[in-house]
Amino acid sequence: MKGVKSLVKIDLNCDIGEGYGRYNFGNDAEIMKYVSSINVACGFHAGDPVTMNRTVELALNAGVSIGAHPGLPDLMGFGRRAMNISFEEAKAYTIYQIGALKAFVESMGGQLHHVKPHGALYNMAATDELLSRALAEAVYAVDKNLVYIGLSGSKMVQIAENVGLKTAHEVFADRAYTAQGTLVSRDIEGAVLHDIDHVMHHVLRMVNDGKVLTMEGQELNIKANTVCVHGDNDKAIQLIKKLKSELENNHISICAF
Amino acid sequence: MKGVKSLVKIDLNCDIGEGYGRYNFGNDAEIMKYVSSINVACGFHAGDPVTMNRTVELALNAGVSIGAHPGLPDLMGFGRRAMNISFEEAKAYTIYQIGALKAFVESMGGQLHHVKPHGALYNMAATDELLSRALAEAVYAVDKNLVYIGLSGSKMVQIAENVGLKTAHEVFADRAYTAQGTLVSRDIEGAVLHDIDHVMHHVLRMVNDGKVLTMEGQELNIKANTVCVHGDNDKAIQLIKKLKSELENNHISICAF
Amino acid sequence: MKGVKSLVKIDLNCDIGEGYGRYNFGNDAEIMKYVSSINVACGFHAGDPVTMNRTVELALNAGVSIGAHPGLPDLMGFGRRAMNISFEEAKAYTIYQIGALKAFVESMGGQLHHVKPHGALYNMAATDELLSRALAEAVYAVDKNLVYIGLSGSKMVQIAENVGLKTAHEVFADRAYTAQGTLVSRDIEGAVLHDIDHVMHHVLRMVNDGKVLTMEGQELNIKANTVCVHGDNDKAIQLIKKLKSELENNHISICAF
Amino acid sequence: MKGVKSLVKIDLNCDIGEGYGRYNFGNDAEIMKYVSSINVACGFHAGDPVTMNRTVELALNAGVSIGAHPGLPDLMGFGRRAMNISFEEAKAYTIYQIGALKAFVESMGGQLHHVKPHGALYNMAATDELLSRALAEAVYAVDKNLVYIGLSGSKMVQIAENVGLKTAHEVFADRAYTAQGTLVSRDIEGAVLHDIDHVMHHVLRMVNDGKVLTMEGQELNIKANTVCVHGDNDKAIQLIKKLKSELENNHISICAF
Repeated sequence: MKGVKSLVKIDLNCDIGEGYGRYNFGNDAEIMKYVSSINVACGFHAGDPVTMNRTVELALNAGVSIGAHPGLPDLMGFGRRAMNISFEEAKAYTIYQIGALKAFVESMGGQLHHVKPHGALYNMAATDELLSRALAEAVYAVDKNLVYIGLSGSKMVQIAENVGLKTAHEVFADRAYTAQGTLVSRDIEGAVLHDIDHVMHHVLRMVNDGKVLTMEGQELNIKANTVCVHGDNDKAIQLIKKLKSELENNHISICAF
Repeated sequence: MKGVKSLVKIDLNCDIGEGYGRYNFGNDAEIMKYVSSINVACGFHAGDPVTMNRTVELALNAGVSIGAHPGLPDLMGFGRRAMNISFEEAKAYTIYQIGALKAFVESMGGQLHHVKPHGALYNMAATDELLSRALAEAVYAVDKNLVYIGLSGSKMVQIAENVGLKTAHEVFADRAYTAQGTLVSRDIEGAVLHDIDHVMHHVLRMVNDGKVLTMEGQELNIKANTVCVHGDNDKAIQLIKKLKSELENNHISICAF
Repeated sequence: MKGVKSLVKIDLNCDIGEGYGRYNFGNDAEIMKYVSSINVACGFHAGDPVTMNRTVELALNAGVSIGAHPGLPDLMGFGRRAMNISFEEAKAYTIYQIGALKAFVESMGGQLHHVKPHGALYNMAATDELLSRALAEAVYAVDKNLVYIGLSGSKMVQIAENVGLKTAHEVFADRAYTAQGTLVSRDIEGAVLHDIDHVMHHVLRMVNDGKVLTMEGQELNIKANTVCVHGDNDKAIQLIKKLKSELENNHISICAF
Repeated sequence: MKGVKSLVKIDLNCDIGEGYGRYNFGNDAEIMKYVSSINVACGFHAGDPVTMNRTVELALNAGVSIGAHPGLPDLMGFGRRAMNISFEEAKAYTIYQIGALKAFVESMGGQLHHVKPHGALYNMAATDELLSRALAEAVYAVDKNLVYIGLSGSKMVQIAENVGLKTAHEVFADRAYTAQGTLVSRDIEGAVLHDIDHVMHHVLRMVNDGKVLTMEGQELNIKANTVCVHGDNDKAIQLIKKLKSELENNHISICAF
């Protein structure tokens, strides 16, 4: 198949810049070699301004697409704990965080590309229409050309489209799916896929065929514009590298949406 | 003197949006009737995102010029305690805060106009060249058209000009000056002027004649592009109203620089 | 009825020390003249260490019983937003906050008397058994002689008793009750009683007769060891004063449980 | 030399519990095998309540002496940046943090043993008498039996003794000293000793002979009650192990003061 141009394209995205002050987290420079998009923590659940600045600089040098990764105001819980915030709060927190990151990107001559909510904010938005609307309106208000990344097939993506945003349906490389097409909760055994061959097959099926096998063994349709990978330990980075070469071996280009 | 157009112009600026969560501070809506520029707290020393959003909305409705008021990351000390931060930290903290506020302003169709460092950051910058450079570079990096407000005659203004920014020399309506042209420390008796007639005379001398009588009784030259007034209590608002009418009676227009 | 000793006793408690840094809240010194117990914010939802120190000093001088008022780690939301924290987190946050306040009280020769969870932590605990257990175990672990204040008739009180703590059933002076004996949500009109005569009658019925008229007009039994009053504005303080004299006119002594 | 009892005793102390939320730091369980005392971060510069709880539990199991390690309210800067706090603030921050840690220790049946200020608070106290007094008074107010660890020979130790506390003079295993007996600033090359043999010799001279060779090559007298070691990486743990065996080979017992 030499010389045949890839027809299928997929984005690989990774959450980075998740350190805080003296705390480091993951090997951001290494991850950026293998993914096409990054989502940068904006100071609420992780990511102090110095970390944000350095992360953006790394990303511009690496040539990856830069997105904001706004989270709940909960550094102690890394933004992973559901909080009962109002529409007004959700919208204001999101505008604030996107604005802060955008300033770093633009101060170095770059351009902010997308927004992906983090952790509990993402999970809540997947099923909470009011919260979804707050987030989407915030993104649109800051810059209507930003792409909004949300859980594939969820209300959060649909609402973002209703608000007028371009969107990307996100699937997860190492997570099991329920019959409803949502992620199996981390509390349940089997929620995270550890076997690397399993992960490869899972991703290829979603990207190539638009299908996912649920935990219960049922096959569902799924739309995949971007695949989320993790980079917070050495094993994770090995997985990203393997995934990148596996995708390329299957004539799938990795590039930002 | 009816029909004679004012020839002298001066900006009155006030720090606002200094609440946080459930905590309110001052009567921002009232203050905006009398000043031409406001400096909005950006979340580090005061001003959560919801407060910022509301403050910007009020300001756009009132038609005043909106500036960012970045401070040290010290909510507990209201940004008034000197902290030994590095050049990199100072620059990143400033980019972050300006970016956050800018997003609120632009999300409502407005335009950010200026930046004025807050509290200890302002006081340290007045004499610390490295810190001044960090702040000025941050402002320039975010938007080189932003006006930088600094202590009249200080290094922070000069350095901002060297960096390429437009600047405004700031004087204080209710503060006594030293022989060096700096503010008398609040720890010293007489640092804050309480007599309203004294304040009026002090401001008119600075604005009309470019002169200030120091605490020691010496007359100094001083450049006044903007006069800082406070609005955190009822008496302060009375003073602003009086000052506004006194300036107008003296044919001095109040408008943003 | 002169010379007749009161037979009925009731505690009046109030949440205080709710400032933070430069932010003040309520007139704590004034409130302490009229109540028998206070609940002091411990730094998570309000109350920095300097405020805590001053509040404890005021309370010891006023002779009121001092309690800890631990809250969720959410200063921006004043601890009023439900957060999905784990058993381990809830227990550790509570030990931490009680310990901090206890040190202030003991450093001045006083003794910590009780603990009352704040805001969303209180509301969640009223119906969440696991959370209730975490809080009660934390209080017991720090000092098993501390009295635990919880919503009258709720699981949180029962669980605290199971854990081995002395408890106080709390009723609210200005809040309407549902048919289930819980508080009507603040989102619903009529949740907060504004008419002072209504409040007086409501409290006297609960304290004297152990009865409460629900919003739906039904009469329920209710146990009242302590009545929560608010003190965050002038009107609230007038209500406390009126309530105190009304109770005393009815031969009810105000004293800590 | 079997059967010969060591006559010289020394304490090895290490700062631990320095994680925060999802962030971990160092291998605390491993370090506790080799040191006799630990200083636990109390939430201001590091150490959330869950981390504190786990650290105290580990320490009680390991049988090491537990101390509080209060720091400045600066998580972003890890408490390493000088801040201009008042006497009242310093005292209240210290009481708060000690109290919080004490509650964890006592909730598990242990006893708090000592207090050592952290980072910039320690460095400032070494030369600032007013700050030193605030810290010492805070320790004394919480529990006058707590031992106060301070820089060997500094004012902070002397002031703590004046206040009525038992004290321990601290020396540093891997830090160079100035002619004044203070630590060479980390900004200066050679401030940190990296050669393991150099460190061994440096410590043995201080512990056995009460002497230290300054960076300038001068010999000074120095009092050593406790030696600070670091444990934030694998190399550091190797150094601690080596130091422990080297001290024991020289018939010096490692035990808390």
